[in-house]
Amino acid sequence: MPVAPSSAVGPLQPAVEELGQRIFTAMEGAAAPLFSAEGVYARLMDRAMRNEAFKTQLFRFVDVVPTLTSNAEFVRHMQEYLGDVAGELSPVLKGGLALSGIASGLVAPAVRANITTLARQFIAGASPADLVATVRRLHGLGHAATVDLLGEVVITDAEAEHYVQRNLEVLDALGAAIPGFGPPCASDLAPGGVVPRLNLSIKISALDARIQTIAPERSVPRLVARLRPILARAAALGALVNLDMESFAFKDLTLRLFTELLRAPETAASPSLGIAIQAYLRDSEADLAALIAEARRLGRRFTVRLVKGAYWDYETILARQRGWPQPVWARKHESDACFERMTRQLLDHADVVSAAFGTHNVRSIAHAVVQAQRRGLDPRAIEFQMLFGMAEPVKRALRSLGLRVREYCPCGDLLPGMAYFVRRLLENTSNEGFLRHTFVDGVGRAQLLADPATRVAAAPSPAAAKAASPVEFRNEPPLDLTRDNVRRDFAVALKEVRGSLGRDHPPVIDGRRTRPATWIDSVNPADPAERIGRAGSATAAEADAAVAAAVRAQPAWARRPAGERAAILERAAAIMRQRRLELAALQVLEVGKPWAEADGDVTEAIDFCVYYAAEMRRLAGGVANVAVPGESSITHYGARGVAAVIAPWNFPLAILCGMTAAALVTGNAVVMKPAEQSPVIAARFFDILIEAGVPSGVIHFVPGPGEEVGARLVAHPRVALIAFTGSREVGLKIWETAARTAPGQPELRKVICEMGGKNALIVDSGADLDEALPAIVHSAFGFAGQKCSALSRLIVVDAVHDHVLERLAGCAATLHVDRPEYAHTHVGPVIDATAQRRLLATIDEGARSARLLWRGDVPAGSGFFVPPAIFTDVARDSRLARDEHFGPVLAVFRAADFDEAVALANDSAYALTAGLFSRSPAHIARAREELVAGNIYINRGITGALVGRHPFGGFRMSGGGTKAGGPDYLLHFMVPRSIAENVLRRGFAPGDEEA
Amino acid sequence: MPVAPSSAVGPLQPAVEELGQRIFTAMEGAAAPLFSAEGVYARLMDRAMRNEAFKTQLFRFVDVVPTLTSNAEFVRHMQEYLGDVAGELSPVLKGGLALSGIASGLVAPAVRANITTLARQFIAGASPADLVATVRRLHGLGHAATVDLLGEVVITDAEAEHYVQRNLEVLDALGAAIPGFGPPCASDLAPGGVVPRLNLSIKISALDARIQTIAPERSVPRLVARLRPILARAAALGALVNLDMESFAFKDLTLRLFTELLRAPETAASPSLGIAIQAYLRDSEADLAALIAEARRLGRRFTVRLVKGAYWDYETILARQRGWPQPVWARKHESDACFERMTRQLLDHADVVSAAFGTHNVRSIAHAVVQAQRRGLDPRAIEFQMLFGMAEPVKRALRSLGLRVREYCPCGDLLPGMAYFVRRLLENTSNEGFLRHTFVDGVGRAQLLADPATRVAAAPSPAAAKAASPVEFRNEPPLDLTRDNVRRDFAVALKEVRGSLGRDHPPVIDGRRTRPATWIDSVNPADPAERIGRAGSATAAEADAAVAAAVRAQPAWARRPAGERAAILERAAAIMRQRRLELAALQVLEVGKPWAEADGDVTEAIDFCVYYAAEMRRLAGGVANVAVPGESSITHYGARGVAAVIAPWNFPLAILCGMTAAALVTGNAVVMKPAEQSPVIAARFFDILIEAGVPSGVIHFVPGPGEEVGARLVAHPRVALIAFTGSREVGLKIWETAARTAPGQPELRKVICEMGGKNALIVDSGADLDEALPAIVHSAFGFAGQKCSALSRLIVVDAVHDHVLERLAGCAATLHVDRPEYAHTHVGPVIDATAQRRLLATIDEGARSARLLWRGDVPAGSGFFVPPAIFTDVARDSRLARDEHFGPVLAVFRAADFDEAVALANDSAYALTAGLFSRSPAHIARAREELVAGNIYINRGITGALVGRHPFGGFRMSGGGTKAGGPDYLLHFMVPRSIAENVLRRGFAPGDEEA
Repeated sequence: MPVAPSSAVGPLQPAVEELGQRIFTAMEGAAAPLFSAEGVYARLMDRAMRNEAFKTQLFRFVDVVPTLTSNAEFVRHMQEYLGDVAGELSPVLKGGLALSGIASGLVAPAVRANITTLARQFIAGASPADLVATVRRLHGLGHAATVDLLGEVVITDAEAEHYVQRNLEVLDALGAAIPGFGPPCASDLAPGGVVPRLNLSIKISALDARIQTIAPERSVPRLVARLRPILARAAALGALVNLDMESFAFKDLTLRLFTELLRAPETAASPSLGIAIQAYLRDSEADLAALIAEARRLGRRFTVRLVKGAYWDYETILARQRGWPQPVWARKHESDACFERMTRQLLDHADVVSAAFGTHNVRSIAHAVVQAQRRGLDPRAIEFQMLFGMAEPVKRALRSLGLRVREYCPCGDLLPGMAYFVRRLLENTSNEGFLRHTFVDGVGRAQLLADPATRVAAAPSPAAAKAASPVEFRNEPPLDLTRDNVRRDFAVALKEVRGSLGRDHPPVIDGRRTRPATWIDSVNPADPAERIGRAGSATAAEADAAVAAAVRAQPAWARRPAGERAAILERAAAIMRQRRLELAALQVLEVGKPWAEADGDVTEAIDFCVYYAAEMRRLAGGVANVAVPGESSITHYGARGVAAVIAPWNFPLAILCGMTAAALVTGNAVVMKPAEQSPVIAARFFDILIEAGVPSGVIHFVPGPGEEVGARLVAHPRVALIAFTGSREVGLKIWETAARTAPGQPELRKVICEMGGKNALIVDSGADLDEALPAIVHSAFGFAGQKCSALSRLIVVDAVHDHVLERLAGCAATLHVDRPEYAHTHVGPVIDATAQRRLLATIDEGARSARLLWRGDVPAGSGFFVPPAIFTDVARDSRLARDEHFGPVLAVFRAADFDEAVALANDSAYALTAGLFSRSPAHIARAREELVAGNIYINRGITGALVGRHPFGGFRMSGGGTKAGGPDYLLHFMVPRSIAENVLRRGFAPGDEEA
Repeated sequence: MPVAPSSAVGPLQPAVEELGQRIFTAMEGAAAPLFSAEGVYARLMDRAMRNEAFKTQLFRFVDVVPTLTSNAEFVRHMQEYLGDVAGELSPVLKGGLALSGIASGLVAPAVRANITTLARQFIAGASPADLVATVRRLHGLGHAATVDLLGEVVITDAEAEHYVQRNLEVLDALGAAIPGFGPPCASDLAPGGVVPRLNLSIKISALDARIQTIAPERSVPRLVARLRPILARAAALGALVNLDMESFAFKDLTLRLFTELLRAPETAASPSLGIAIQAYLRDSEADLAALIAEARRLGRRFTVRLVKGAYWDYETILARQRGWPQPVWARKHESDACFERMTRQLLDHADVVSAAFGTHNVRSIAHAVVQAQRRGLDPRAIEFQMLFGMAEPVKRALRSLGLRVREYCPCGDLLPGMAYFVRRLLENTSNEGFLRHTFVDGVGRAQLLADPATRVAAAPSPAAAKAASPVEFRNEPPLDLTRDNVRRDFAVALKEVRGSLGRDHPPVIDGRRTRPATWIDSVNPADPAERIGRAGSATAAEADAAVAAAVRAQPAWARRPAGERAAILERAAAIMRQRRLELAALQVLEVGKPWAEADGDVTEAIDFCVYYAAEMRRLAGGVANVAVPGESSITHYGARGVAAVIAPWNFPLAILCGMTAAALVTGNAVVMKPAEQSPVIAARFFDILIEAGVPSGVIHFVPGPGEEVGARLVAHPRVALIAFTGSREVGLKIWETAARTAPGQPELRKVICEMGGKNALIVDSGADLDEALPAIVHSAFGFAGQKCSALSRLIVVDAVHDHVLERLAGCAATLHVDRPEYAHTHVGPVIDATAQRRLLATIDEGARSARLLWRGDVPAGSGFFVPPAIFTDVARDSRLARDEHFGPVLAVFRAADFDEAVALANDSAYALTAGLFSRSPAHIARAREELVAGNIYINRGITGALVGRHPFGGFRMSGGGTKAGGPDYLLHFMVPRSIAENVLRRGFAPGDEEA
């Protein structure tokens, strides 16, 4: 860890070092309960820090503990997680593991008690009464407190209300008790007087079951409404209310909410308001500057708790998964440096903002104090906040130096407390943590006190290094709809698209637009009066003409180098990337997709083009066969001929594009038959292909009724390949028809056939329901369930069944069913009146044959809305249990145990997607082996397959076992030719041909 | 090139070095025409030695030159070969290449003349008269001669007769001329008197159009008969006749022939006989010892020309291709050391063998002289032979030291001469050649004179190093039927199998043998009276029972680890390897396969098991999907369910085994329906699978008529997968039937369908006809044309059409049509009386509609023999041209040019195999791009695909584009499951999951 040359060190560095040394000296001799060599906790932490695998297993076990209500379940999970790493455990625990199978009643309570005890070290109290006692004790030590109610992740409105109530209770309890503590302690005394003794920290995610970062104009008023009683009570008690800062996705909304509170007349004067700001975010300096400016404008003083940020791993992983820029600094010392810059920023505006520094880092603390002094501020004007149960020596040292210390005191039950405990475990064992450096690794004081800014200049960021790694496929990043400007652009696109609707889209054959006799209207399913456009219906003769033209053009297309065809797809991708908002907006209007899903459809289309282009480049050189000297042998893949692409309306761009792109890039010509419900987006895609450079003989556009145009293509002897995605009924007919070989037909016809699903998801005992339930609701009701991957059978293991049902309806009730042109809409209409009638009948029948657990509301009007519905007590052989409904209908089943759950999941004619929420390693392993589905998802929702990451497609009655977006897919569109050349002449073979 | 410590040097090393230095000294000052810095040849050789790519292109161009009769063709080839490496050429040649397109009439003759002049440096004369003049000139220099008639490879009996005649002419010409040269020259004078002044070298491959190393008892008498006039004339002229040694495959037969000559009464006394022995063969010391012992026993003196051997690259490559042990020493110095050991061996037996040393290596020469002297032999008792036109300084030095020198004088036309020229070019530019070391690389004399034996000990052989490389798939080596003991074992196996024929083979369902009501006889097609056995015919109900049992057993089989299933296949392979002779012998009798092809069928079956086992192990871990941090995503492949395997009789073990092994190793259960004509070998295979450990519920044996048993299986809703190889008619019916989905059927049925072919091979101008014609005859008539890969359309480019026809019939006439139990048989019977009748009718009809070029003879008796037939003037739309006949019927077409040839080759309903013989790089490249077939072969026959090396299968009406024995094959037997696990918990993902 090199320290930069002293010339780069700021002028105050000697003062910071001097103060830092004084703090360290004051820490000596103080008891350090957390990192002493004694105790089970210390031993576990020590091992976790030395063994990454053990750390993972241990923390994952701790994470699941609160949900394991039976001793047998507890012991099973313990064995699964810790059986493999038992060698790392103390002999006692090893003995316990060996024993546990036969004596779970003895072992489980003992271990549970141990873990609970450990977790309690970090939790100030389970109840308000406990909390009062703790705060009183801290007061005795001269420490102030801020209270945080540990909240189970809130996924129903009832849970949000409960959180509000608990905050009021705590306010009341502490408000009543504090006067009895006696005079303010030293930490309550700022130079300007007594600061609010009662501090409350609020997490906005616990205030609302479904915060819509995509629609802050709706979410902020809801949050304000929930906060109102708390703020009123706090004002009455003279308390300070602080908004905690959670993940980056909530950041803008939290800032907006806080600004609203600063401005609102009812909170303009009181209570005192604070907000946490995370120095690890690249945005934070600008955000803080904006807040200060606004507060100065309003003349409203506020408090900032400056922290480094606790979700670094999560933010980093999420951004990489989505292909978004990293919101956080790449390296710890960059965050540390930013923390110091923002410290100075806060101190520079001490007239309007009170600064609190949430850190255990002695360097950061010393820097803040020295910078305050330099500005002529009394260091008691600022506050240092540290977590309850941690860093005791630091707290005491600061107190001994006369600085103000406030402890962040979590309060609540073991269940939510355990998640908090695991975060603390991670923090204490992090390779980069100050406490680990100080107390465990024995890093020298000089290094601990070095200026982080000097390291920033010296070390290149690892993110930059990553960018230099070899190119490989990356999914197109989705829009970040939490961003105001992105949403504004989307709204503009919607308006513009709307202004250009109503055009005619006739068939295009061999570059010529036909003059159709009949037209098919395309309407907005949320408002059927709005016509999106109309498509000319191709005749059977026109379908024949398209095939004939394709037959003529295909050989030249196949002869073009694969790289050229790939480049054309890449151009198509570039065009779609450029017009992504327009294409997404058109889907919102033509098929009723909510914004994010419409955007996902467009990025998937882009992904298909880019991925298949890359795949074709990979395959273009052929695959080397087993090599022997004297022979060159390679297998090349070539086109099949003319492909008919018959596409569905539910992914009107992505699936059409995927099948078409695969067929084109492999050298086939394509006759494209879009769904009757989405011809306008299809026509737009056709134009893009032409614009990208696909020759007009190679791609033909033949909208029309499936029974006419589709059937004609499927039976045509010169169609060598049919790529179909759609219903089981049509798929089976195509499968059968295409297999009949007409006399003179040149090729056996190949069918790539993706049909429906009746997809199950299992919720195991020990599942993380906070994650499972929103994923279930989204998988079942996203895009009104109109995805072949959608969840329609929820299977819950008995142990958690009732608890799941309790929360499920509430979670579903937070969905907004509305017109998809509104950003806040989760569930739009179904595609057309036929689907609406069918689904309403299904729900009616379900309400008779099963128990309706919940049913959503639909907006008024003529849109094809269907209320999402959840049924329980569903007979296992009922239509509800067996048939694909392709709409927002979810059936819930109770399984006696995991075995039955798997059997039930597999008991279907379909095998498309399936899922499991579980934290049992053994059950996860079994699901991986035993679930019968083309796409299996563990601990996440079962929709939203991404190209490359989740090659998509099923078997049984779901399809032929092909995998769109996977490495085998293009092979189905080609035939292989193996070419062996004897390169031996006169006994001599060129050297480079030899093995 | 390290020289070992002197302690390892033999006691005579100082004497050898001393003599060697004297030879080198004597070489100084002598003109060295070949390796002087002057002349086009020297410049070309210099460049070739510095640039491997240039060397390859140059030598390949020279190789094709003699066949290029038109200037345009000449220039086109020159541009294709040398255009890319023009930078290596002199400005003149570069200018010529640039010019050549517009002035081929100027450029071609000039370049051709240059090349011819160069080639002539190594050829003693084109005609006997030229030769006499050369030998006379050599005589004047004191050099003796041995004459070798350059022979085009002999592929017809007429060509062999012509070779004999030319030898007689040369004998006569030289015999008449030599007395006129005056007294014997110094090289003719040995201590014991004048040696035969007239020496003739004979290549046995030129004596017979089809030497059958597999049947020496037939070939040796034919060779003796051809040699008889030459030997008689030589005896009359007092000449010595020497048998040259060619490739290793001919070695045993050459030795056997030579031994016969030593023994035969008519040659017991004269002429003098000699034989060449190659020191690079590991066998040679033992072979020489046996020859000497036999000669000693007979009291018959003979001569040995000890050479190092000229086919090292070829032998090495061939052995590696076949998986046979290397017959040659791995390193040059090992051959040199062996040469010296054999030198001593010859000198030790100087009383019975006269030694001639064919080498240019000064060290080898000095060693021979010193060793002779040490034994008290006059060095003039031994002879040194060197090639005409090479190493002149060495020859002159030896002469100056009083040693005897004989020049090896090739005589003949440019066409065969060019092949000889290319071999000399390769020799002169070889990295390991003594001449290059001496004259070009300037290696020091001490090193050139070092004892090669001391290096043998020091350096490990590269073959040993190869064995340590990572395991990868290697084809099972075929039997080396040139070996006496191997043939003996095969004959014993035939006899033993014959003794155990006639057994009953009922269906076996779920481990139980049924009691069939009807039986199908299997007979020997070469002798229908011989019953091989009989198979019980399964009923439709039994087929259903087999499927039901398979459905029950399959899930457990699929759940077994892939490695266990792979191990069972490997056990089956091991059993077949152990019983390979028995399995091959059974095929000879049951389907009439000649030995080598029966053996090939068994090795292919072994290969399928081993290859698919390895492939399954590769696939078992799944394939990683695009990775992002926080997610583990992988695609696993799993079984489809129950497979019906419907197999043909023509590869009764290999194809049955391949389809079954693929289905089993992927976790499917198999109902196996063998062909009605080959149930006995199928039953044997079934037993092997059970013995290897396939559970009895997983494999079922249901022989019976295709229309009953096969049809039932194909239509069965629980059969998820059908692997079929057979006729187009049946294949199309299966394709269609299987695509109908019955209500309740669990899976879309998958068909792997391999059907027929109507395979074309193009002979281009510039093709090497010596290689093409035997390959054509074998591809068309091997196993009586009963392979789906067999050649049935020969397309010859106009420029060579007539020449090809001239030689084709003669080449075909060398085939032996006979009972396959005889080792010498090339073509056996067809499978049954129906096929025989159909094919005889086809030939009759062909003889009416086209011109019968040639028709073979068939043996008498009741066997199902069909005479192989070649037709020309075949109408392009005739049945002969279009239909698959599946028998020994070849149609020849004339194409105006290469374009038409490709169009004609592709003008077929089938697309299975295709081939090209050409030495035009551009045409080879076009064939690779444009030929429409699943398997394309360049400059080799079009049958005999090997597992792994030639993934096999076609498209159009030949099949569905699957590739047996290729890396994609197993995927067709499985369905993919993509499993994505979110491994992020509490914002923390295990480190090893991160990208």
